[in-house]
Amino acid sequence: MAQHGTKRKLETGEPMSVCVPDTMKLASASPRRRIGGLKKAAVVEEFGQPLVVKQVPVPEPGHGEVLVKVIASGVCHTDLHVRDGDWHVKPTLPIIPGHEGAGVVVKLGPGVTTLKLGDRVGHAWLHDSCGGCDYCLSGWETVCGNQHQTGFFANGCFAEYTIAEANYVGKIPENVSFAQAAPILCAGVTTYKALKETEAKPGQWVAILGACGGLGHVGCQYAQAMGLKVCAVDFGSDKRSYALEVLKCKAYVDIQGKSSEDIVAAVKAACDGVGAHGTVILAPVLAAFRQGVDMLRPMGTAVGISLPPGDFMVDIFSLIVQRKTIRGSIVGTRKDLNESLTICGEGHVKCTVEERKLEDINGIFDDMAKGKIKGRCVLRIAPDP
Amino acid sequence: MAQHGTKRKLETGEPMSVCVPDTMKLASASPRRRIGGLKKAAVVEEFGQPLVVKQVPVPEPGHGEVLVKVIASGVCHTDLHVRDGDWHVKPTLPIIPGHEGAGVVVKLGPGVTTLKLGDRVGHAWLHDSCGGCDYCLSGWETVCGNQHQTGFFANGCFAEYTIAEANYVGKIPENVSFAQAAPILCAGVTTYKALKETEAKPGQWVAILGACGGLGHVGCQYAQAMGLKVCAVDFGSDKRSYALEVLKCKAYVDIQGKSSEDIVAAVKAACDGVGAHGTVILAPVLAAFRQGVDMLRPMGTAVGISLPPGDFMVDIFSLIVQRKTIRGSIVGTRKDLNESLTICGEGHVKCTVEERKLEDINGIFDDMAKGKIKGRCVLRIAPDP
Amino acid sequence: MAQHGTKRKLETGEPMSVCVPDTMKLASASPRRRIGGLKKAAVVEEFGQPLVVKQVPVPEPGHGEVLVKVIASGVCHTDLHVRDGDWHVKPTLPIIPGHEGAGVVVKLGPGVTTLKLGDRVGHAWLHDSCGGCDYCLSGWETVCGNQHQTGFFANGCFAEYTIAEANYVGKIPENVSFAQAAPILCAGVTTYKALKETEAKPGQWVAILGACGGLGHVGCQYAQAMGLKVCAVDFGSDKRSYALEVLKCKAYVDIQGKSSEDIVAAVKAACDGVGAHGTVILAPVLAAFRQGVDMLRPMGTAVGISLPPGDFMVDIFSLIVQRKTIRGSIVGTRKDLNESLTICGEGHVKCTVEERKLEDINGIFDDMAKGKIKGRCVLRIAPDP
Amino acid sequence: MAQHGTKRKLETGEPMSVCVPDTMKLASASPRRRIGGLKKAAVVEEFGQPLVVKQVPVPEPGHGEVLVKVIASGVCHTDLHVRDGDWHVKPTLPIIPGHEGAGVVVKLGPGVTTLKLGDRVGHAWLHDSCGGCDYCLSGWETVCGNQHQTGFFANGCFAEYTIAEANYVGKIPENVSFAQAAPILCAGVTTYKALKETEAKPGQWVAILGACGGLGHVGCQYAQAMGLKVCAVDFGSDKRSYALEVLKCKAYVDIQGKSSEDIVAAVKAACDGVGAHGTVILAPVLAAFRQGVDMLRPMGTAVGISLPPGDFMVDIFSLIVQRKTIRGSIVGTRKDLNESLTICGEGHVKCTVEERKLEDINGIFDDMAKGKIKGRCVLRIAPDP
Repeated sequence: MAQHGTKRKLETGEPMSVCVPDTMKLASASPRRRIGGLKKAAVVEEFGQPLVVKQVPVPEPGHGEVLVKVIASGVCHTDLHVRDGDWHVKPTLPIIPGHEGAGVVVKLGPGVTTLKLGDRVGHAWLHDSCGGCDYCLSGWETVCGNQHQTGFFANGCFAEYTIAEANYVGKIPENVSFAQAAPILCAGVTTYKALKETEAKPGQWVAILGACGGLGHVGCQYAQAMGLKVCAVDFGSDKRSYALEVLKCKAYVDIQGKSSEDIVAAVKAACDGVGAHGTVILAPVLAAFRQGVDMLRPMGTAVGISLPPGDFMVDIFSLIVQRKTIRGSIVGTRKDLNESLTICGEGHVKCTVEERKLEDINGIFDDMAKGKIKGRCVLRIAPDP
Repeated sequence: MAQHGTKRKLETGEPMSVCVPDTMKLASASPRRRIGGLKKAAVVEEFGQPLVVKQVPVPEPGHGEVLVKVIASGVCHTDLHVRDGDWHVKPTLPIIPGHEGAGVVVKLGPGVTTLKLGDRVGHAWLHDSCGGCDYCLSGWETVCGNQHQTGFFANGCFAEYTIAEANYVGKIPENVSFAQAAPILCAGVTTYKALKETEAKPGQWVAILGACGGLGHVGCQYAQAMGLKVCAVDFGSDKRSYALEVLKCKAYVDIQGKSSEDIVAAVKAACDGVGAHGTVILAPVLAAFRQGVDMLRPMGTAVGISLPPGDFMVDIFSLIVQRKTIRGSIVGTRKDLNESLTICGEGHVKCTVEERKLEDINGIFDDMAKGKIKGRCVLRIAPDP
Repeated sequence: MAQHGTKRKLETGEPMSVCVPDTMKLASASPRRRIGGLKKAAVVEEFGQPLVVKQVPVPEPGHGEVLVKVIASGVCHTDLHVRDGDWHVKPTLPIIPGHEGAGVVVKLGPGVTTLKLGDRVGHAWLHDSCGGCDYCLSGWETVCGNQHQTGFFANGCFAEYTIAEANYVGKIPENVSFAQAAPILCAGVTTYKALKETEAKPGQWVAILGACGGLGHVGCQYAQAMGLKVCAVDFGSDKRSYALEVLKCKAYVDIQGKSSEDIVAAVKAACDGVGAHGTVILAPVLAAFRQGVDMLRPMGTAVGISLPPGDFMVDIFSLIVQRKTIRGSIVGTRKDLNESLTICGEGHVKCTVEERKLEDINGIFDDMAKGKIKGRCVLRIAPDP
Repeated sequence: MAQHGTKRKLETGEPMSVCVPDTMKLASASPRRRIGGLKKAAVVEEFGQPLVVKQVPVPEPGHGEVLVKVIASGVCHTDLHVRDGDWHVKPTLPIIPGHEGAGVVVKLGPGVTTLKLGDRVGHAWLHDSCGGCDYCLSGWETVCGNQHQTGFFANGCFAEYTIAEANYVGKIPENVSFAQAAPILCAGVTTYKALKETEAKPGQWVAILGACGGLGHVGCQYAQAMGLKVCAVDFGSDKRSYALEVLKCKAYVDIQGKSSEDIVAAVKAACDGVGAHGTVILAPVLAAFRQGVDMLRPMGTAVGISLPPGDFMVDIFSLIVQRKTIRGSIVGTRKDLNESLTICGEGHVKCTVEERKLEDINGIFDDMAKGKIKGRCVLRIAPDP
């Protein structure tokens, strides 16, 4: 992975003449013509320090790669961890974060046959994987042991241009704006995939723990597009009407002031009195994992997404006599990504998006750390083409 | 459930003339002729006390029920708990334990159309269920909330005769002896079902924790009948040759003197260096649950069967980034039961059986409590017909 | 089967005092009190002749059965075949047709534990099955070889009262009217099940051949409740706006004047240019079967429901190199039935219903034979309780 | 596809010095050192004419490709069609046939990370696919619309060297000889996949139509490695003992002199009296397709592999009321390929192989056309390393 990270490292160099293509003319452009020049990017140069917004060279797409002109770029909590280097695996610096990059293809590397200039694409968390292991061969590249992540091991999307593997980008439907597409690339596909992993079927109940946040509010909408009934679980009575009226959930359980036992009982009561068929655990607290399992009906499946540090406790007796299932889920495969974008294109999912500028990235991180972001923050890198 | 248990309770009464049918003549017998009389049975009359072997009335089969003449009756650890009443749910006394009863149908209650006199059947743990809930309707009656258990809420099979619901007995193939069939009715079907629940496919690895015991030695054979490769995990170097040569497992990991980390590492090493596709947790200790999850490869599924008291700890990080699944499994459905008997009939599974007499039941319980039973103990109630 | 049919046969007899319970008082009523008396019913007494509407005795529910007071009763094409006896299997006469009976439980037979007086239930096609075969044990009682059908082998729902097996009725949610529930009991569950059998997933395309008819218009709504995109296929330009605007389908293909090749091409064009993920064949013509397979994209599944006499032709080459699947589907299981009613209760499905009287049954059959029925005709047997 | 085929076309040229590496030293060799020179190959230069065995240049592996030194190369009926150009899609000549090439990697093209020199690999039918469509992304590259086939659009394995995509080769276990591996690459994986596609489970019955031929005899062994019971169906009483004693099938149905009805009845009788859970249709005749569906029990699945020209007839009534499934299957995915090789490595599958020389290819084709080949013919290209 180091090799890969290194490959994409920033190179200093004398300023080159900027020659950004007019995307309006892309269809007739030569697939190999030169973009070159410099791009503006927000760069992590030192862990824990503010990002530096600067001009850096635009790299050339290698074999199987494309150069993407970024239009909108979502900001995720993971980007904060990239800045702070506080995970046990750290990126090699300098690095450009960002793994929710929506834009258009402006240059094709050699061997690219599945994309063409002007294609609307999304550059997501999974930058590339080995392509040859059991997981890659069966459409589960998300657990490939030799994967690289965008904005972590490879430079990401807080920039005017980004390099992506042609076969790893998501396809953005015509009727989804770039600003709307950006959060789907991580928040959307991750919750969509988790919902699939519950194996809940149309007409069944799914409880979403953390239903009104950046991931949750998208997840509620995906659940309904899949025919599921949502019991929203979140903190505070002020979110009730949002959950029920805006997100159209069937029930809302306010956890404020409630014990775990009360929360579980309230969800069970809401879900036919016996519990949810599936639960999706978005809240990054250990208690949510325990509750997410306990509030299942027999045969139910709890899917964990969030990554609070530590272990959680499972009650063996009810796991066994009620034949429950507990499962982890990490982002989504490329197939999931395309599906989540397609469903979004059907008009079933609207993200609450706050558009800001690339130069505001450090202020955004401050707001994010303070929990001040509503929905999802998206960097507006370029005007819609 | 009390009603049901009560329904089958023993009634004292004056000795009636014994009129046991000659099973050799069953085919021509009237389906409604009188059996009546008394049967010998081992009865729990007081918790924690030895069972009393005595004559009790033979009940009449009610609507949808059959009277089964028991030939062989397996003894399970659960029967010890019935005797001792040390679970939080207790049977109403007196009760006849036993839920591995293999025998022949000797009388049909009204409305029985799916069995006939002389049919070879097995009376297993699930005595009956409601028949109308979502679980019963979809072939998952094992999690029905209104089920009754044989030898627990309804009188069981430590007796010359037992009453069973016609649609809840297993069908014993002609070429499986009653003594061999008995342990399949609980130990066999339970491990078989757990293996199915791992979703491991032919050619894949399954690790069985507790591979050489009463359940484990049957489970190893089922796994192989399903095309799986078994990594046997058990305690002691003396079991290695048994696991590898007798049970034909592909690998053996001796846990004696090993830390959990070492056990996990050894299983991973045995399973292509990356871990098992599935694990079946038979050992009734909390550590086995943790190990059973940790030794999975990405995408793997751990299935717990044993019921050690308490909770176990799950590492969230690896659960999620490796997309693991944890699942509980309880006995098996009637379909599973018939499948497990069919596979046994193909000659793939041989139980290690020690035949003893009904009158030895208290000695058997002593031996069981001391861990002295090899394989499975089966009560020989009647000679093979 | 004859036995069963015979069991429910009409018995002539002197008029008994009618003693119909007030359903408002059901909750406090004794479960075993006498209903008795006579009921009005439409009876097939001779094949090909008009039904006779007359008073016949109200039967007593046997073990595991319930007496249902019918409120609304749907009329299906199958009932026409019952009248005419033009299938190779014929009912024994006299017989009361009708297998879409929605009503309330007014009497419980012995042994019934899963229903109570006053329950809102639906009496559907599957009257009962053996309960002990592989299919019954795994929730596929619809293919049980010893099943009986309501209104065919057992008396049906064109009557004020009907006898049903307690564990075979559907549960009607509170917020679904009896008149709306009736067509769900056959038309609804059948199309819902077929959609499930396509294995199409949310966001994918399903083409419904015969989309605007009695079954089709319900199927289109179920498909959308399941997150599917519908390409409606039917005859005539007048149905276009109905399909697109009322039923909310995404596309409409008018087969009028088109060759099979043109129809297939039009559906492929509508479905991303490559074909449908699944197709549901409702049109009772052989050509629809061929088209339903040909219009699939690779990996797609065609599900046939209708029963035109004869064989249809499958092109082997495309079946194989495109890995297509063809599947038959017959009504739905009890689990499917409850699911379809639950989804209806969520407000996703509205049947176009024409209410008429029991006495009009012969006129309804005339209209049906002439194709004059819009949506589904429902007999109003009693006012809503 | 033409472009691809063209890329690999033979180039005439002056003989170059042959410099074949000693595979024993491969591990220490430079991954980019020169092989170069010429290779012996059997070439189709004109449709319908004998192949020409000649020296042709050894191509250089491009990006993501490897050069494979072929040790053993299976001969398939498809190769006959390549020679004769009698399919509606024809290869561009000249072409080297062969898609069962087992050998070792002797040179890595740029960008190859998942293979190393000396790896034992199999070059199978699927040369490459687009990598970006829904099918490629979900592990179903076998139905990719932009795939290329080895020995058809790209030069194949009737040669001392062959070029393969690194991520499309199968991995041959150490304990499988190259001569044994070769037929697995097409005959083996194709039947294995078809068996998976029947969805038959351990302990269930699968009928194989054409059980004793080149594909069938391998399929019978895979079925048993998967825990299935095989009812072998083939022509002639002389194959009975081979099927039952050598291949260990549970039943044999000789079709000689039997009507379709008799064949179906005989298979049903063998399979519990009710029919097979799954059927695999290998016999390239239309009647086998009809029989393969008719001999299913309810809920069964028939999988067609062979490609007789034309359509086959399906009886709609039994398809629907018995909920049967019909499915096509084409070769197997890369995951299937590795699975089939792994299972072979467990010792469950032995191909009947006749080794011959590359120079005999035209004689082999003659024998094949006359049905004289027993099992599978494999070209011995080089001695085992």
